[in-house]
Amino acid sequence: MTGQARLIAVDWGTSSLRAYLLGDGGAIIDERAMPWGIMATPGGDFAKALETVTEDWRRRQIDLPMIASGMIGSAQGWREIPYVRCPAGLEDLVAALKLQTNVLLPIVPGLVMDGDIPDVIRGEETQIIGALDRMPQLHPASLLVLPGTHSKWVSVKDGKIVAFTTYLTGELFAVLGKHSILGRPALTAGASTPPKSETWEAFDRGVLTIRENASRSLSSLLFSARTMVLSHRLPAELSLDYLSGLLLGEELRSALGERRRREALPLALIGETTLCERYLRALKLFDVTEVAVIAEAATTGLWRIAERTLSQLARP
Amino acid sequence: MTGQARLIAVDWGTSSLRAYLLGDGGAIIDERAMPWGIMATPGGDFAKALETVTEDWRRRQIDLPMIASGMIGSAQGWREIPYVRCPAGLEDLVAALKLQTNVLLPIVPGLVMDGDIPDVIRGEETQIIGALDRMPQLHPASLLVLPGTHSKWVSVKDGKIVAFTTYLTGELFAVLGKHSILGRPALTAGASTPPKSETWEAFDRGVLTIRENASRSLSSLLFSARTMVLSHRLPAELSLDYLSGLLLGEELRSALGERRRREALPLALIGETTLCERYLRALKLFDVTEVAVIAEAATTGLWRIAERTLSQLARP
Repeated sequence: MTGQARLIAVDWGTSSLRAYLLGDGGAIIDERAMPWGIMATPGGDFAKALETVTEDWRRRQIDLPMIASGMIGSAQGWREIPYVRCPAGLEDLVAALKLQTNVLLPIVPGLVMDGDIPDVIRGEETQIIGALDRMPQLHPASLLVLPGTHSKWVSVKDGKIVAFTTYLTGELFAVLGKHSILGRPALTAGASTPPKSETWEAFDRGVLTIRENASRSLSSLLFSARTMVLSHRLPAELSLDYLSGLLLGEELRSALGERRRREALPLALIGETTLCERYLRALKLFDVTEVAVIAEAATTGLWRIAERTLSQLARP
Repeated sequence: MTGQARLIAVDWGTSSLRAYLLGDGGAIIDERAMPWGIMATPGGDFAKALETVTEDWRRRQIDLPMIASGMIGSAQGWREIPYVRCPAGLEDLVAALKLQTNVLLPIVPGLVMDGDIPDVIRGEETQIIGALDRMPQLHPASLLVLPGTHSKWVSVKDGKIVAFTTYLTGELFAVLGKHSILGRPALTAGASTPPKSETWEAFDRGVLTIRENASRSLSSLLFSARTMVLSHRLPAELSLDYLSGLLLGEELRSALGERRRREALPLALIGETTLCERYLRALKLFDVTEVAVIAEAATTGLWRIAERTLSQLARP
């Protein structure tokens, strides 16, 4: 833990609370992670949780400014921060943050895309600000993919977020794997762990099943996760890998179809390494090989936003 | 309970056991239903369960022949009966049944459709035999829809089942409604029951959202069940009705697309009345209004199959 501390940056989502002590330029000096997402914060006491997590750092320096992003700004979080309308970029987020006066923890607002079918992001906007800072070549026009429980495909133009689409890929995998007949074969197949090569092969087959059956819907192709096992073409213990391939394949089939209908923008993945690896593999099966990967963008985003918002951090 | 008993017909599925005492021509004399599906048969003792359910009837007449259909013939059931290959009709089922000699309970085999992506039915084949018997006009060429946990769309030609597709509509609704973020608003909205007209309206909106966004995938449109509530366009207590509309809409969008690509065959719904009502309503929103409805076809099917299989029932 070295360097002059400048900011406490908090990435506070549904399932976890990650706090970072940042120095000049947003360099990470120290970090803490707790399973205290907004749905599991002890006693629902957000102030107490934040105090506990940042106690050490504040003991060193009492007046450290703070900033947060993520679901902590939702109706179920600490304070509901109204969504900012798309298109929106760094300046729009800063303007909205400046309205939050006299608060312990300023929270970056999420974005809403209006229309017949509204869509929202909360937390991802900050990662995108960070990603654009890290890779300026994405600034003019790009498509950013943020995999997760709710996977987001975000269109950027001239440094602004202009549109996005949410896919429920991760959540579908979790509930179908745990609670449906599709996950049961894997659960009852016993504890043997198949070799990595076989799990990837099953995953690939799922992706290709979606790709090669363009006219068939996901809700019918899902049943193949069962019939492939019934007909002994897929070992039961690999059925969840196959299911994962089907669901990710569906996301790519739909999102890349949209992309083709517009123009083939540069593509970047933003997220945790093992999840990005899965997406890279599936993208390759859809013949998309030029993809940038950005493992961690939240702290960079929080720093850039804070720098423009908080007077204590004003560039000299 | 009047009339000469001729046959005990058993419709034994995953979640329930329905036994019927049938008279001449398959007329229902008496019936029993127990929640003893193959996954919940007390002690896993199928023989005992059957004995208990049919005891009264056997006391009256000890040598009543029996026949069953459904998941009782699966690997998790009493005896695994190999699938019969499509195309298949009454004669093929009868031929397979005649191989089951010296058994207490002959079980109608399910059907398998081979190919890159295999598909299977078990129990529905019997309902279809019954439906074709009830409505001979479906015999030459028709499309039969059997809604349920796993909804089946079955193509019939010259009285034979030639192809079918399974949609996971019912199972997706169950797991998403109970275990995902999409079901949560309805669960926390309180106990007030909205009027029927409003629940239908929310259902319709779900169906139309799928229909009117032909290029968007289900896994992205599902998220609208959340964002519509977030943006106060849909009351939280109606979100499950909207979700039901989305999922049924997806089934129709896909299955009717297939139908258009081939030819517009006569359509019939086979199933429980309230579920068929839901399908009729959704079909209407897809401009399909000419649909026959057959509420109960299993006993007719079991009777027709038994009549051709069991010598005791041979027509005079």
